[in-house]
Amino acid sequence: MPENALEDLRGRLAAISDLERVAGLLGWDQQTVMPPAGAQARANQRATIIGVAHERFVSTETGRLIEAAAELTDGLDYDSDDASLVRIAMRDYQKERRVPSELAAEMSASSTEAHEAWVEARRTSSFELFLPYLEKSVELRRRYLDCFDPAERPYDVLLDDYEPGATTAEVEGILAELRDGLVPLIAAVRERRDAVDAGMLHQHYPPEEQKAVVKAVLDAICFDDARWRLDEVVHPFAMSASVNDVRITTRYLEDFLPGGIFAAMHEFGHGLYESGVGEEHERSPVGRVTSLGLHESQSRLWENFVGRGRPFWQFFFPQLQAQFPKQLGDVSAEQFYRAVNRVEPSLIRVEADEATYNLHIILRFELEQAIVDGDVQLADLPEAWNARMAEYLGVGVPDDAHGVLQDPHWCFGFGYFPTYALGNLVAAQLWRKIEQDVPDLEDRLSKGDFTDLRGWLAGQIHALGGKLTLAETLDRVVGEPLSPGPYLDYLRSKLGDIYGLMPTAGRT
Amino acid sequence: MPENALEDLRGRLAAISDLERVAGLLGWDQQTVMPPAGAQARANQRATIIGVAHERFVSTETGRLIEAAAELTDGLDYDSDDASLVRIAMRDYQKERRVPSELAAEMSASSTEAHEAWVEARRTSSFELFLPYLEKSVELRRRYLDCFDPAERPYDVLLDDYEPGATTAEVEGILAELRDGLVPLIAAVRERRDAVDAGMLHQHYPPEEQKAVVKAVLDAICFDDARWRLDEVVHPFAMSASVNDVRITTRYLEDFLPGGIFAAMHEFGHGLYESGVGEEHERSPVGRVTSLGLHESQSRLWENFVGRGRPFWQFFFPQLQAQFPKQLGDVSAEQFYRAVNRVEPSLIRVEADEATYNLHIILRFELEQAIVDGDVQLADLPEAWNARMAEYLGVGVPDDAHGVLQDPHWCFGFGYFPTYALGNLVAAQLWRKIEQDVPDLEDRLSKGDFTDLRGWLAGQIHALGGKLTLAETLDRVVGEPLSPGPYLDYLRSKLGDIYGLMPTAGRT
Repeated sequence: MPENALEDLRGRLAAISDLERVAGLLGWDQQTVMPPAGAQARANQRATIIGVAHERFVSTETGRLIEAAAELTDGLDYDSDDASLVRIAMRDYQKERRVPSELAAEMSASSTEAHEAWVEARRTSSFELFLPYLEKSVELRRRYLDCFDPAERPYDVLLDDYEPGATTAEVEGILAELRDGLVPLIAAVRERRDAVDAGMLHQHYPPEEQKAVVKAVLDAICFDDARWRLDEVVHPFAMSASVNDVRITTRYLEDFLPGGIFAAMHEFGHGLYESGVGEEHERSPVGRVTSLGLHESQSRLWENFVGRGRPFWQFFFPQLQAQFPKQLGDVSAEQFYRAVNRVEPSLIRVEADEATYNLHIILRFELEQAIVDGDVQLADLPEAWNARMAEYLGVGVPDDAHGVLQDPHWCFGFGYFPTYALGNLVAAQLWRKIEQDVPDLEDRLSKGDFTDLRGWLAGQIHALGGKLTLAETLDRVVGEPLSPGPYLDYLRSKLGDIYGLMPTAGRT
Repeated sequence: MPENALEDLRGRLAAISDLERVAGLLGWDQQTVMPPAGAQARANQRATIIGVAHERFVSTETGRLIEAAAELTDGLDYDSDDASLVRIAMRDYQKERRVPSELAAEMSASSTEAHEAWVEARRTSSFELFLPYLEKSVELRRRYLDCFDPAERPYDVLLDDYEPGATTAEVEGILAELRDGLVPLIAAVRERRDAVDAGMLHQHYPPEEQKAVVKAVLDAICFDDARWRLDEVVHPFAMSASVNDVRITTRYLEDFLPGGIFAAMHEFGHGLYESGVGEEHERSPVGRVTSLGLHESQSRLWENFVGRGRPFWQFFFPQLQAQFPKQLGDVSAEQFYRAVNRVEPSLIRVEADEATYNLHIILRFELEQAIVDGDVQLADLPEAWNARMAEYLGVGVPDDAHGVLQDPHWCFGFGYFPTYALGNLVAAQLWRKIEQDVPDLEDRLSKGDFTDLRGWLAGQIHALGGKLTLAETLDRVVGEPLSPGPYLDYLRSKLGDIYGLMPTAGRT
């Protein structure tokens, strides 16, 4: 019955959503609690689940239901639940049906194996160990690209998986503008490097006490034990098994205090997004945020715009000091705020400061295109990596564990990295709007009152789920296209203040 | 191609096995680490996974492959891998294809919801809260029974799910014989109740210290951190996500020391079985132990024949005493051994001693048959329960939390309970054989050397996986049918020694 098409489609997509959530949970389990010897069986399990989900989604029955539902929703508002469901299902269907289920399952199984190999390769700093898995990963993505009509740039197809609707050319232009703004700013800051002392961060901070601090931070910004979990992992991530089952992770570095706190606030931002999607979209593709730029805007907003902001430390520093009187007894909130914002070119992306972070991304974005276009031999990647690190950040890479092997992303594909930088830009665009919309924002944050901020994000961003693309969301919420301007303004103002730069310093 | 039928069947069953393992993991996750608010979504996820597995298994394609594979394996040894695969797949297929996928999914979803309700009902001791879920559970099992040809007894069909090949009449006869042996033995022991003092077990034992003890016990009997996990839950259970990913659980009672230790040893026995199945059966129905009586024989063997044995405490008591000098400083290993074997009729099955335990099971076995046959109104169950507790164990039930609501099993169906008692009987039959086959067994155990015991179990039982039924296994390993004789002999000898009974005491 065509009139039942919408309901039938919803039921079909609900089961597929269940399978996808379960695949995510299998990944969480593997990284947090699974005995290590379980890896091989887990690879099979994930591949089976993802294969079944894919097979069901790309079946002709799904296509028939989408077509029939499309007729029923014709004329509905663009962002109505039903029109959004059909539009998103149609978009994904037209993309995914091109990919054979066998290839999807192989990509999943191979990713899990590559990740295990990467862990060992990174531990021993042995690129040779990882190279065959990387080769396999690239080969699989080439077979994936072969499933699609040729795009203007092959990378477009991969980028679209993580940032629907974005193009390589567009991102290239935006990141070039960002780089051109950052390079002189970082140079100006580096001339006044002695203005900020971060020595107090590099003392011994016992992990158990860090854990208590991180829990206190999360409780303050709203962590509900009935709906959330916090675990410790090597590489922090967030995962939601449902809107009522949100799991974030962090890791504690014994000799560097901010790592655990900011990783937790970052993942909290992701988790809050996932937990804020309306329950009515719980088992629907509408409830899945596919724009990683948007997702990352939420994690960056909590990590940097809140967590590395002066008001937050006015509020929280006394608690931190009470937990670490020996290490921080003589430090002021202002000194701590300045320390966590110190700009220092470094080797590891996830430990980078706000400003240089983006250069790490631009490096990866360029290398990924070279990999996909075949412009670099995979065996030469360490060399290419190290050359760019020297050029962009002026640092020498001592070994591959601190270089090309530092991130696991290439086990899973290519096209993900640029969304990290886009997230920074989007966060700045949203933050500017939040400052207009939420009265006395700074004052509230300095009192530990996050209610209105959370309310704004919930209403303006989270409730939308995955209905709108990044561009559509920005257009609706801030009335502007994606742009690096607000982010550069934000960094110039913040770092100008901290480092005492002239108002025009760092501008070209 | 018929010649590929075996390989195709293996591939098809491997994916189904993956789905079943994942469903098990979802249950583990829910009971150990899931934020409580995730329950509703989890019910949907489990139902979807189980539904997909069922649908794939009962498809005509699976049937076609089984038929074709059966021709290829005709003439192979009964217990060869291939013949076993086809035989087990055929048996399960002929049973499961009778059950519509919708019913299978509904039973799964309803079980998860019933379990959540049961937790709350038990907490508040409110049978009324649980009654509608119990009614639904019974109704679903009636619909399940309707899928099958009428059996001699309706309960046969349910029992067969947990103990393939067993019949209600056979189990009834065995349990009657067991009851007739136990009642006079327990009466004789009760006359000499003052012979054993268990007061030292009921002191304050801090859970953190119990945890250390339990870990030491498990490490001694062989717990490999790379393949095993131990977690804390309200209701201990064991689950394996693969032969290399075995997860057991226990719970610590602050004022009763043995609870946590014996629950852990019990679940270890289950886990050791799962971890001992050959990796070649990892993703095959041959690797799944379907006889719960056999499975329970392994947990009982470690919990009772090892853990409640004198040699074990000769070995481990000094370590226990060192952990709890205040509580156990004045206690001897022999006194402790006697204490953990004290016979005392009580309310809660999982806390019952070895002898009275079986009466708890017989009570449930009888009530389950009354439920299935419609001979008891569900609303009258508490009354029926309490009457039998008074009759069989001589104890009064103060509230339903300590009575009919104590176990969650009826959320999931009926027919499971009797396998607990069968496990006791099988453990005794195996133990008698082990004593013949392993030289100096007691001596080895008293030195903490479990190698030969583990080796015997691995070779004789675990490696078989699910190839043989309970009856077939007993016939092969001990050359006898299932019988309560060895178990009654074991209890008479052990309790006779501890309580100083006359050699003929407790015999009828």
